Amino acid sequence: MTLGHNITLKFAIVTLVFTMISCKNENTSISDNNSETITSEEHPNLILTKEGVKAIRANLGEIPIFDQTLAKVQEEIDIEINNGFDVPIPKDYSGGYTHATHKKNYSLMQKAGVLYQILDDEKYANFVKDMLFEYAKMYPTLPIHPKPRSYARGKLFWQCLNDSNWLVYTSQAYDCIYDYLTEEERNNLESNLFRPFADHISKDNPQFFNRVHNHSTWGNVAVGMIALVMEDDALLQSALYGIKNIDLDKSLKDNDGGFINKDGKKGFFANLDEPFSPDGYYTEGPYYQRYAMYPFLIFAQALQNKKPDLKVLEYKDGVLLKGVNALLNLSDADGDFFLLNDSQKGMSYYNTSLISAVDIAYHFGGNNPELLSIAKKQSEVTLDDAGLAVALGIKEGKTKPFDKKSIELSDGANGDQGAVAILRSGNLELVHKYTAHGLSHGHYDKLSFALFEDGKEIIQDYGMSRYVNIEQKGGGNYLKENKTWAKQSISHNTLVQNETSHFQGKYDIGSKHHSYKYVFNADNENLQVSSAKEDNAYPGTKLHRTFVTIKDNDYDNPYVLDIMRVESETANQYDLPLYYLGQLIQTSFEYTKSDVPQILGNKNGYQHLYNEANAITKGENIKLNWLLNNKFYNYTAVTSKGDEVILAKIGANDPEFNLRQEPALVLRKRNSKNTVFASIIESTGVYSPVSELAINSKSNIKSIEVVLDSKDYTAIQIITNKDKKVMFVISNLNNDNEIEHKLNINNNEVSWKGPFILKEIN
Amino acid sequence: MTLGHNITLKFAIVTLVFTMISCKNENTSISDNNSETITSEEHPNLILTKEGVKAIRANLGEIPIFDQTLAKVQEEIDIEINNGFDVPIPKDYSGGYTHATHKKNYSLMQKAGVLYQILDDEKYANFVKDMLFEYAKMYPTLPIHPKPRSYARGKLFWQCLNDSNWLVYTSQAYDCIYDYLTEEERNNLESNLFRPFADHISKDNPQFFNRVHNHSTWGNVAVGMIALVMEDDALLQSALYGIKNIDLDKSLKDNDGGFINKDGKKGFFANLDEPFSPDGYYTEGPYYQRYAMYPFLIFAQALQNKKPDLKVLEYKDGVLLKGVNALLNLSDADGDFFLLNDSQKGMSYYNTSLISAVDIAYHFGGNNPELLSIAKKQSEVTLDDAGLAVALGIKEGKTKPFDKKSIELSDGANGDQGAVAILRSGNLELVHKYTAHGLSHGHYDKLSFALFEDGKEIIQDYGMSRYVNIEQKGGGNYLKENKTWAKQSISHNTLVQNETSHFQGKYDIGSKHHSYKYVFNADNENLQVSSAKEDNAYPGTKLHRTFVTIKDNDYDNPYVLDIMRVESETANQYDLPLYYLGQLIQTSFEYTKSDVPQILGNKNGYQHLYNEANAITKGENIKLNWLLNNKFYNYTAVTSKGDEVILAKIGANDPEFNLRQEPALVLRKRNSKNTVFASIIESTGVYSPVSELAINSKSNIKSIEVVLDSKDYTAIQIITNKDKKVMFVISNLNNDNEIEHKLNINNNEVSWKGPFILKEIN
Repeated sequence: MTLGHNITLKFAIVTLVFTMISCKNENTSISDNNSETITSEEHPNLILTKEGVKAIRANLGEIPIFDQTLAKVQEEIDIEINNGFDVPIPKDYSGGYTHATHKKNYSLMQKAGVLYQILDDEKYANFVKDMLFEYAKMYPTLPIHPKPRSYARGKLFWQCLNDSNWLVYTSQAYDCIYDYLTEEERNNLESNLFRPFADHISKDNPQFFNRVHNHSTWGNVAVGMIALVMEDDALLQSALYGIKNIDLDKSLKDNDGGFINKDGKKGFFANLDEPFSPDGYYTEGPYYQRYAMYPFLIFAQALQNKKPDLKVLEYKDGVLLKGVNALLNLSDADGDFFLLNDSQKGMSYYNTSLISAVDIAYHFGGNNPELLSIAKKQSEVTLDDAGLAVALGIKEGKTKPFDKKSIELSDGANGDQGAVAILRSGNLELVHKYTAHGLSHGHYDKLSFALFEDGKEIIQDYGMSRYVNIEQKGGGNYLKENKTWAKQSISHNTLVQNETSHFQGKYDIGSKHHSYKYVFNADNENLQVSSAKEDNAYPGTKLHRTFVTIKDNDYDNPYVLDIMRVESETANQYDLPLYYLGQLIQTSFEYTKSDVPQILGNKNGYQHLYNEANAITKGENIKLNWLLNNKFYNYTAVTSKGDEVILAKIGANDPEFNLRQEPALVLRKRNSKNTVFASIIESTGVYSPVSELAINSKSNIKSIEVVLDSKDYTAIQIITNKDKKVMFVISNLNNDNEIEHKLNINNNEVSWKGPFILKEIN
Repeated sequence: MTLGHNITLKFAIVTLVFTMISCKNENTSISDNNSETITSEEHPNLILTKEGVKAIRANLGEIPIFDQTLAKVQEEIDIEINNGFDVPIPKDYSGGYTHATHKKNYSLMQKAGVLYQILDDEKYANFVKDMLFEYAKMYPTLPIHPKPRSYARGKLFWQCLNDSNWLVYTSQAYDCIYDYLTEEERNNLESNLFRPFADHISKDNPQFFNRVHNHSTWGNVAVGMIALVMEDDALLQSALYGIKNIDLDKSLKDNDGGFINKDGKKGFFANLDEPFSPDGYYTEGPYYQRYAMYPFLIFAQALQNKKPDLKVLEYKDGVLLKGVNALLNLSDADGDFFLLNDSQKGMSYYNTSLISAVDIAYHFGGNNPELLSIAKKQSEVTLDDAGLAVALGIKEGKTKPFDKKSIELSDGANGDQGAVAILRSGNLELVHKYTAHGLSHGHYDKLSFALFEDGKEIIQDYGMSRYVNIEQKGGGNYLKENKTWAKQSISHNTLVQNETSHFQGKYDIGSKHHSYKYVFNADNENLQVSSAKEDNAYPGTKLHRTFVTIKDNDYDNPYVLDIMRVESETANQYDLPLYYLGQLIQTSFEYTKSDVPQILGNKNGYQHLYNEANAITKGENIKLNWLLNNKFYNYTAVTSKGDEVILAKIGANDPEFNLRQEPALVLRKRNSKNTVFASIIESTGVYSPVSELAINSKSNIKSIEVVLDSKDYTAIQIITNKDKKVMFVISNLNNDNEIEHKLNINNNEVSWKGPFILKEIN
């Protein structure tokens, strides 16, 4: 043991109050009296701190959620120590053995490091040490990873991104056993492993490191974390502010088609500036926000511990803590994240990165008791100072429910690039997307929406075309259908003009624009409105979409009114798909089902849709009734004479069965200039396969009609099956809350203040 | 109140010990001193008994599961009494308003009757009385139900079956308020409602009443129950033994295509004799057994109370109680029934008829403590003497787990018409069907199978094509696709010869035959075997199918070996489909996916299958890897050069989207006489969309090979990816457990006793 030796004093001693001897040192001091000289720079001091370890040990056995997590981690690591580890020569893509093993290794090291600190058992330190030395032996011999698919190839993994993951975790492990190692051992590790490792993901790959992207966030943080442990200020500076004096070609793109670095921004702080809006929304969407939050927050925690003068958690008005709140609000009733842009279904706030995000936000963000209810559901905490704070909070009965309300989260560094709105009414959650493009993971789906009930998708967003880490499916990486299908406009619940995607499906164009908010009003829980506009997706065509959730006391559930208004200088074909999930039960219209499904189109995603059946409407309302999760859903839409209804299915031109074969209804208007698509979606009743009772299986809507549509106003009249007649009117040009409007529509006087009204009429 | 008046004494007083005054009478005796004259014939005496009511009241508040059920029922009925009821003129099919309302009414009356007895509150008696009088007013005016689809049309409902349901429940309600009514009131009800009602479903519809079928069971019981309440012995005789002196045309068929009555058997006891095997298996399958058990058991309970000398529960060696046990064993880990013949998915032992079945079986069948664990899961009991017994059993801590093991349940009145076998190994449950046809609800799927894991279907049986009580889908009745698809052989996991169904899909032929058991052996839980033969499905062709569950300690889960051996006098095309559920991940073979799916055939169910992709094999093993419920499954099959693999999808020629569009792999051998289909199904690992880790995502089987196939023996060699080599050998002609076999296969000496062996070889 060489504990207490060779402590460098590069950083100021900040908090003298903590310079007492920790439990650990009391234990080890028996054999090493030198250890009594303690400073705050003594390790661990990155995520775990000396004083944190002391407090944890003092509370062990009395903090159930912490104790359970600790027991689980200890059990896991004990088994792994018993089984032995492997440090294989890198070879595979995601999902392959070497990829999975190196991924597992960093997680094991991080956990073993923590166990060493908390349990004071050297077998854990030894495990980390042995593994690190294996890496230090192998690393200098490694060429660039043999798999060529990445724009920034790593050494342990096929992309620098995964190498960065490794270093973020391993830095923590190194900090935990720092004092357990001799100076010589540390020198060995630092010169053979950590410094060249940091160099590879930074200096050697500036196209990866010097940009604003979740990739570079990981890169910056990886370098920053190891810099903090090694107390290498130069390295820390490049992590915080990027590598200086590197000129990247501004037109370079990455594998996802995103620009590498168009405007020269770089470094950790730039990554905080750019993708986060003042509301804490991360422009790529919650799936990647979840991924990015971990490095952001773990590094913030480390900086808070070692460089508190940087006040990283106060940066941009506390945007990191707001980010945690935004992310939790971007989840459905079960905690699954809404699918905005590239996202895999099922990712949720049960992910480890959210466990640490919630704990850090609680500990460093003013102990918001609502976060404790999320932590309780996660039933796990981080094994560090933050996790201890959460465990104590829960133990002390401070928990309050995390009450998710309707919310609008702005997009853009300054919050002026559109937003995402969540309308929550009854058990329904409607997600309305009118954001900016979302960097390289963005989809071409301006004004699209998705609908959830009780944490289940009803009207789905397809998400990405990728089976993450399932090696059999394209190495676990993005599939080509992500580009040809999942990103295209037609794969979303939004309007497609002339069978082309928004912005021609071009990132260069799409990334220049954003939709904009028109109205967001959730003041009255029985009548909530989200309305937004898009002028650039199709030059010459203006889109204006309004969602209204209406709770009529005659019925158990609220229903959703959807008004998509189109104004164009030219005549076009408009397609509005509805990706309902479930089994079609009945339609109100007669359709012809083809013997053999036809392919709907030949490009822009249309090549992936089968046309299974279609109908030409006579201008009547059309209805679709379907069953999902033993619930009955209904869609009722206004049509014009000659509109086409296509019952479609995903799955054409899918030679490897990569796509999920799920249905859609596409409402098509041909040769139209200005038009309004108006429809209602209802969740009406339930089916029990046990009692075999079908309750409220049909729509409660007798009719929906566009009774007025002008440049200034759009009015929709709805009659329910109880013959209640209501009219929803929206001002299309003036969203001022104080302006008064007065109209006569079909002999009904309607006057109101503000952008919209819902009025019962006779 | 007229309690105690006009008690008829047709039946002997059986138990004098119960002739004390009940609580109810103690309460009411204040106003009516005549009530002191009590006999055992005093009502209720059908399902609830006077003494049962007394015991219930004495225990109320101290029997949690009973108290909860009572509170729930009371809350439900109080709301309904408040809302008022409707007795509409009959008009609709299942799922329509009048159907649903009359169905609801009988359930409400039955419950209100019980509440009256237990809670001694006249508002409940009044509710029943008022509703009964509405029926008595309407019934004499009713024509035959206007909907014409049934072979036996009811008056309240479109079929006598539902009218019978009504009477079974309403008889109980009548019994509960019998003593509350005046003699005049009873005369009114009996002459205007109950007697003509009983006549309609019996005398007026002998084709419904005089047969062996679940329909007639309901009919017999309905008539029998009301006969017991009215103490009408003549009526009871026709319930028990059928209507005499009626000659039915033996060639008549019902709507499902089943014979009405080929052999003249009729009445309740005949219905007990015929469809139940000595093991308690009901030949139509568990879905209809569940449906039939309620009338069987409720009537048995009533007979036990009023005609104990009939010893109905001892009839046929206690077959009714065995039936409950069989039914519980025919459910998966979640309690959902396996799908054998016409069955709707999701039906389970949570159905009310199983709640009463379990309670009755407990109370009258020797208080088997394992039944209490099922009752606990149901978290509801019947509000009668049986429910009280269960509640007391649970309260007294007698509950034991209901341990479902591998089991074979014979079919046929004498148990000699094949069987259904359930192999349970690890979390897998394999259902192997080698039964008789299953009357009119039978499917043409000799030797078919289905596989479940953890209560989820992996290899599915399609079930029936029907959305029970969902009016939008064909009135909630059987859809035409039930006949054209769901009953056909190709819709099942079994062999199809020359694209024709077993027995040409003809009920007249199929109902003459049954498969037969060859081996069922579950003695060794690591090696379980179910083997059966079918000689009649295709004249000139003999089928022999063996399922083996093998637990290899190298792996977490057991795997399933499937050997389908075919011996034919002629060369044929053989198709063996595998209806796997989930997302195709990868195949080991290259296939060509058509741009547009082709229809697989033009009749016998083939017209409903799309051919999405196909491959011609080179004689290698083929593998299919798929993902379902975040678990990885694998299929590995032996092929011969030139075999065709078809990746199919259900849904062709389905003009109203009645079918579920689900996948299958069809292995096709052309121009073959004798052949063996051998394959392995594995559940290997899991995927987490939260951690995004894929664990054991691929098959553990390196190869499977048919190393010997002769008239006498079939031997399959399996090599795992740990290079363990095992051979499974089965004797094809001799299933004697004592016979010794000795063989040399590929230079391996194999000798054993009994019909099969699994041997590790080098």
